[in-house]
Amino acid sequence: METLIEQVNKKLDEYIEIEYPKTIFEAMKYTLSLKGKRLRPVMCLETTRILGGSIEQALPAACALEMLHVQSLIHDDLPCMDNDDFRRGKPSNHKVFGEAAAVLAGDALITYAIQTIIEKSKGLSSDQLVKIIYEYSKAAGAYGLIGGQIVDIESEKKHFEREEKETLSYIHIHKTAVLFRLAVKLGCIVTDAPEEKELEFDEFALKFGLAFQIYDDIMDEISSFEELGKTTGKDKAAQKLTYTSLYGIEDAKNKCIELIKNGHGIIDKYGSEVFEEILGIVEHRLEARISC
Amino acid sequence: METLIEQVNKKLDEYIEIEYPKTIFEAMKYTLSLKGKRLRPVMCLETTRILGGSIEQALPAACALEMLHVQSLIHDDLPCMDNDDFRRGKPSNHKVFGEAAAVLAGDALITYAIQTIIEKSKGLSSDQLVKIIYEYSKAAGAYGLIGGQIVDIESEKKHFEREEKETLSYIHIHKTAVLFRLAVKLGCIVTDAPEEKELEFDEFALKFGLAFQIYDDIMDEISSFEELGKTTGKDKAAQKLTYTSLYGIEDAKNKCIELIKNGHGIIDKYGSEVFEEILGIVEHRLEARISC
Repeated sequence: METLIEQVNKKLDEYIEIEYPKTIFEAMKYTLSLKGKRLRPVMCLETTRILGGSIEQALPAACALEMLHVQSLIHDDLPCMDNDDFRRGKPSNHKVFGEAAAVLAGDALITYAIQTIIEKSKGLSSDQLVKIIYEYSKAAGAYGLIGGQIVDIESEKKHFEREEKETLSYIHIHKTAVLFRLAVKLGCIVTDAPEEKELEFDEFALKFGLAFQIYDDIMDEISSFEELGKTTGKDKAAQKLTYTSLYGIEDAKNKCIELIKNGHGIIDKYGSEVFEEILGIVEHRLEARISC
Repeated sequence: METLIEQVNKKLDEYIEIEYPKTIFEAMKYTLSLKGKRLRPVMCLETTRILGGSIEQALPAACALEMLHVQSLIHDDLPCMDNDDFRRGKPSNHKVFGEAAAVLAGDALITYAIQTIIEKSKGLSSDQLVKIIYEYSKAAGAYGLIGGQIVDIESEKKHFEREEKETLSYIHIHKTAVLFRLAVKLGCIVTDAPEEKELEFDEFALKFGLAFQIYDDIMDEISSFEELGKTTGKDKAAQKLTYTSLYGIEDAKNKCIELIKNGHGIIDKYGSEVFEEILGIVEHRLEARISC
């Protein structure tokens, strides 16, 4: 996994050069360069590898996933959204560059990701590129990430169009699972994988995505700033609809472990150390924090 | 021109349906449905027509241009940007839906435009789609619109990386001309136009775009809210770098008229009533307001 993370970090740094006007490129690079686990690009690359494809070919699409993810973090941290001053232990984008630049840096990353896919992908056909960009666009927008975000925000105001359990499920699928599903999907497109493989990897990404968000809900409630590198306890303060607020910590923990087990069940046959490690991140941290 | 505007309005309405979650689709549709002159889509369609292409084929790309333009208006009006409460005579997006929803509606429009191009375009090859999306992405991002926006904002703070005249020129090319250039470019891609046609239409769009922004700078200084449907006199109040602040009203007027004449010179041979009308919008309004 470390090797894949390094490859992603190297390419992300390479793909965005500081040009004129400096502020915008610096703002884009700033949050992008805060080191994270790069779960989404790594999942894309590992799917590609398992399906017999070339990591090199998948790298632009993998990096685009991280750009999109980082865009959502930058806008999410804005005062009018979650109003978070810290991200990955550092001042968030708008604290460093100001709100206007943070809005614009986020905007710019959305299409820079697509520009990167088109400019840097080698050996993919135009048909494949169109498929990749189509999936990217749907996942990034009102039918994906943004849909999840708006329902998440409206849940604070107790403005529900659907009943609470259904709403929570919508939020988790669209705000979080969507980019993990996109990650494996892009790996499948790069390798021209057959439909049954796509469905299998999608199922895995969905389970992991849901587990990851429930884990996130739990951690927001029980962790400290030092552990997470961002302000915690915010969901409760904002009266957000979360898995823990709706079902309690104990049920959340059990559901999370069940989903991770499902994930192992789907993926074990490939003997992928990387996917083991990714599942393990949630699994072990959860066990370390909450005694089973 | 009216026929083309109607076609664009009809398709824009058709392309975005109100689905769950309602707020985001309503916010996207709200600013998009405020009737404007639809200059960018109309320029794309008229370029296509002149070059012998099908309007029907170009409509999705034309509508994508308007979505991108409207996205930039929504984010531009935010309190952290130009802080404008009105747009096209109506309350701006964040006044109706709140800031968070306005940020997200803008974000969503960026990729919805691309989704629309891919879903709705009929009879275009994947090669053409990739070209269209590539030009769209560059124009929308840090090398285009966003680059222009950030330099525009920094000009208020008198933070200049380059000298003032060069900075103003950068702002006008990137903030305004970029989408007119994109409009004719997409028409050229749809019709597989030869390079010399592309260059010719690009030259026309650049001249018109620059004239349009100078005209906008002049109108902000001398017009009333009732005339423009948005707050005026804001550039001066914010100490923005504009053509009028740098060269004065008289020079601005002369430059604008010169650029419009250049535009006529390039495009007259096609006998296009639509382009005549577009050039006329700036020409006649300017003459009506400032005695020559």
